[in-house]
Amino acid sequence: MSAVSDLLKANEAFAASFDKGDLEIVPAKPVLVLTCIDARLDPARMLGLDMGDAHVVRNAGGRATDDAIRSATISSMLLGVRELVVIHHTNCGMSLFTDDVLHGKIRDETGIDVSDEEYLSVTDPEESLRDDVARLRDVKTLPEGVTVAGYLYDVRKGTLREVVPAE
Amino acid sequence: MSAVSDLLKANEAFAASFDKGDLEIVPAKPVLVLTCIDARLDPARMLGLDMGDAHVVRNAGGRATDDAIRSATISSMLLGVRELVVIHHTNCGMSLFTDDVLHGKIRDETGIDVSDEEYLSVTDPEESLRDDVARLRDVKTLPEGVTVAGYLYDVRKGTLREVVPAE
Repeated sequence: MSAVSDLLKANEAFAASFDKGDLEIVPAKPVLVLTCIDARLDPARMLGLDMGDAHVVRNAGGRATDDAIRSATISSMLLGVRELVVIHHTNCGMSLFTDDVLHGKIRDETGIDVSDEEYLSVTDPEESLRDDVARLRDVKTLPEGVTVAGYLYDVRKGTLREVVPAE
Repeated sequence: MSAVSDLLKANEAFAASFDKGDLEIVPAKPVLVLTCIDARLDPARMLGLDMGDAHVVRNAGGRATDDAIRSATISSMLLGVRELVVIHHTNCGMSLFTDDVLHGKIRDETGIDVSDEEYLSVTDPEESLRDDVARLRDVKTLPEGVTVAGYLYDVRKGTLREVVPAE
């Protein structure tokens, strides 16, 4: 039995009592959350988001990558989003390795040299947060009036702390 | 009042009764879900995921971009994930525009020519799903034994349908 089969069973129960079939494609709140893939983060629960409320982008670290910028551009240009919220977090897996360490592990396990790949490991989550908020503010293809803020989530406490105010 | 201030208030209530502070960094299930940023999708609810259960990657369309592959590599090489599940969905915003249309809109609103940018709009979600599962299976930097499956989520019914079986 794969772990995924449990998820599919859970989906059957979810679908059996599903009552959100008439939600609009445009988010109810003009918000996009960019955060990490970490299993301990549940953006909907930690921010009180209902289904239909907000766009959520997640990648390793919650980094403002080109792909995150692609998502933010579509979200704001086509679907009305105006508030971008970047959330990095304490005890992030991205701070437990360096790109060099991961390059070595991939070379050992697969024989492939990926030493030119950037995995965007993080030393200090406040610094990565400031960097990523600044990167998003620098994007010239977002509509006028889009704001970006940065918060640090504490995985031990469930709290959010403002690191970069919305602007 | 920004929409984000409501989210922060909701987080205060969440943190006040937070009891998940001792979760492990390694997901409880060896699963990574790759899906779309769409506000109508809540991966945790639709798959019965508890906090700590699984990695979740989200980008516009749930596409197997280089950045999604970066996340999947970190997840599987460093944090034990072995089952990748790609979920695209019906009525996706990515099928409501073409890259040309978005290029035109960005040029009109910002004056910037981004005609060399790929926004990865989708014509047929089953086709994009097959493409993206194939792309992930082609990644040479994932550990031995990682499987990839593809499912289509129906935003009107809350159901998942298998399009590409795990392999």
